[in-house]
Amino acid sequence: MNTTTIPKQEFYDRLKKFQVNIQKAGFDACLVHASESDMANVRYLSEYWPTFEASAVFVPAEGESVLLVGPESEIYAAHRSVFANIEKMIEYRESAEPECPGMAFASFTDVMAKYSPEGRINKLGIVGWAITPLPVYMSLKEQLPEVELIKADITFLPLRFVKSENELDCMRKAYAISELAVETIINEIKPGMTELQVIGIAQREIYKHGGEYEGHSLYCFCGASTNNAISRPTHNKIVKNEVIQLNIGARVSGYSSSVGLPISIGPLPERKRSLVDFGLEAHFKTIEMLGAGIPAGEIVKDYEAWVKSRGFEKYLLYGPCHSIGMMEVEQPWMESTSNYDLQKNMTFQVDTFFYDHDFGLRWENGVIIKEGGVEKLSSKYMKVIEI
Amino acid sequence: MNTTTIPKQEFYDRLKKFQVNIQKAGFDACLVHASESDMANVRYLSEYWPTFEASAVFVPAEGESVLLVGPESEIYAAHRSVFANIEKMIEYRESAEPECPGMAFASFTDVMAKYSPEGRINKLGIVGWAITPLPVYMSLKEQLPEVELIKADITFLPLRFVKSENELDCMRKAYAISELAVETIINEIKPGMTELQVIGIAQREIYKHGGEYEGHSLYCFCGASTNNAISRPTHNKIVKNEVIQLNIGARVSGYSSSVGLPISIGPLPERKRSLVDFGLEAHFKTIEMLGAGIPAGEIVKDYEAWVKSRGFEKYLLYGPCHSIGMMEVEQPWMESTSNYDLQKNMTFQVDTFFYDHDFGLRWENGVIIKEGGVEKLSSKYMKVIEI
Repeated sequence: MNTTTIPKQEFYDRLKKFQVNIQKAGFDACLVHASESDMANVRYLSEYWPTFEASAVFVPAEGESVLLVGPESEIYAAHRSVFANIEKMIEYRESAEPECPGMAFASFTDVMAKYSPEGRINKLGIVGWAITPLPVYMSLKEQLPEVELIKADITFLPLRFVKSENELDCMRKAYAISELAVETIINEIKPGMTELQVIGIAQREIYKHGGEYEGHSLYCFCGASTNNAISRPTHNKIVKNEVIQLNIGARVSGYSSSVGLPISIGPLPERKRSLVDFGLEAHFKTIEMLGAGIPAGEIVKDYEAWVKSRGFEKYLLYGPCHSIGMMEVEQPWMESTSNYDLQKNMTFQVDTFFYDHDFGLRWENGVIIKEGGVEKLSSKYMKVIEI
Repeated sequence: MNTTTIPKQEFYDRLKKFQVNIQKAGFDACLVHASESDMANVRYLSEYWPTFEASAVFVPAEGESVLLVGPESEIYAAHRSVFANIEKMIEYRESAEPECPGMAFASFTDVMAKYSPEGRINKLGIVGWAITPLPVYMSLKEQLPEVELIKADITFLPLRFVKSENELDCMRKAYAISELAVETIINEIKPGMTELQVIGIAQREIYKHGGEYEGHSLYCFCGASTNNAISRPTHNKIVKNEVIQLNIGARVSGYSSSVGLPISIGPLPERKRSLVDFGLEAHFKTIEMLGAGIPAGEIVKDYEAWVKSRGFEKYLLYGPCHSIGMMEVEQPWMESTSNYDLQKNMTFQVDTFFYDHDFGLRWENGVIIKEGGVEKLSSKYMKVIEI
């Protein structure tokens, strides 16, 4: 059973490192956001995982931080987080916006007065800019009109780029569970099942083996919808001799994983099989290119050039990697415009997607960047499986 | 197997009704938002359910609407939605903010020019205000500085208050699946299992019986954490003679459900059992109070007065009802400040929560408001279950 987890002290160390970054960036404080489906920033600092409501952590450049939660989450946050300071704010209520008559809430003015070293601030960094609730932004503008609000994801996110040994253990466990779930699907899948029933098998196995949730919205697609880069499973039925795309990911103590492969029940038509085979070759090609010190942008350019040299560029949408950690997709991205070098203990999802007009396929496995190569987080299903 | 669904025409009818509201409110258009975990507004209008990325529907006061999606969702949205018009916008990318080199995107200026009756607007209503991505707000302010942006949830949400027969069928099916999942949990739960393993049983059953997802983050709590109003299951072990709180909800074609009850393996201590029993009495009391034409605020005041008259007010956090539909919690709320009357075919979750310092319990069942009473969406587990 899973007991892989992040020790309390590691959260406090993260907060200290973040405060160093805040000082270097010249902010007086940062406000770090999370939502139910995008919980990573707040969970990384507090272990708190909001549900229904949104949440934030207010981190001053010096001194104690505070966890900000919605009207219903105070007791839950006290049980779950590593924080002693918790404030309840109407801005973090759920999207159905209850009025909560009779409840008392802290304002941003109150929070600044109580938790800023000098009781006031000039420059406030906003982390999780894309998921900051609009009511939070409006209240900040109204209550603290003199405070400069600055997007500050770059002040925080690099803390999450290189994983600690405890983080890597959570990820190893998550990938191991994902592989077990894939194995069970391969044993139990039958023509006539719906895509969603296959997802039910995966969900059962994820929780059975110690996962805490899905690591991302799980994929099982059969036929035409395999050509969607992202999608949702439906009541569409599994049929023989067709690409069945599986992307199954467990989450362990906040850390996500995903194992992706195209399978079939009975042989695929030649045209489809040859793109599946080429995809697997491309997948191995990417893994060979990875290692500490390699410039991320070069990998993408080399990969794209290699795909082109093989005549498959018309089937390419994107790839070949993105970071994985608390979110199944997180920064840093690996794009042709990326200008950083891979570092030891960064974790990437090798994500090899090719599509034609009527189908597609995706090979996905995780790796930990090491000197001269990688440690594979999953490798059992880097092969063509025909049931 | 589930084939309960919303016909395509019903989506177009919703759009037409919404346009009438937009005209009445004096807006030139509305921009309606959704995220992965808060998908209801966009799904209600389009059947599209975003994953990873955010999404919106731009609805002009007259003429054709357009679905706005992120960089990776174009093909998925074309397959899944009832919309012919789809535009790809960088503002709806996932929170990890890929740069997407080489991709072309529409701007808000483009969208207004193409889909507004006169190619320009003065007043834009924002729906899903609490989940509108900040990058969307910033782009609107920058690209359309002369346009007045106004929170417009009230222009849209009432469309979702009274459910159609198709919507009610989806909800009946969702509750039926939830009851089947609860039944299986009662048959399989054992001391020593973790809360999360119990959730795995529920997930398996939800997908097996035709659900498309969980209707909300599922609850199984044993012991102290039952006193959290909202929470997340953990690796905490199930033990005998303790309150085990289950809240299990399936989702069918976008419609949520939840069946909640406290169970135990072996008898509960007297103090806990008596609060469980009182909770069930309160739950029945609420259901008796419901019916078309009853003022919502009065129900809350009468409920609170009744709880007080019985001497249990110190165990009361909130209640006794909230609306349920596409989201497990949606508007209208039933609070003491509510000033509307219940209408036929509104759907409420009767949500009876009491807590003491070391435990809590929640009875939850759904009802459809009818003349003179309700149709129960679930009723099998309105009884004390001691395994």
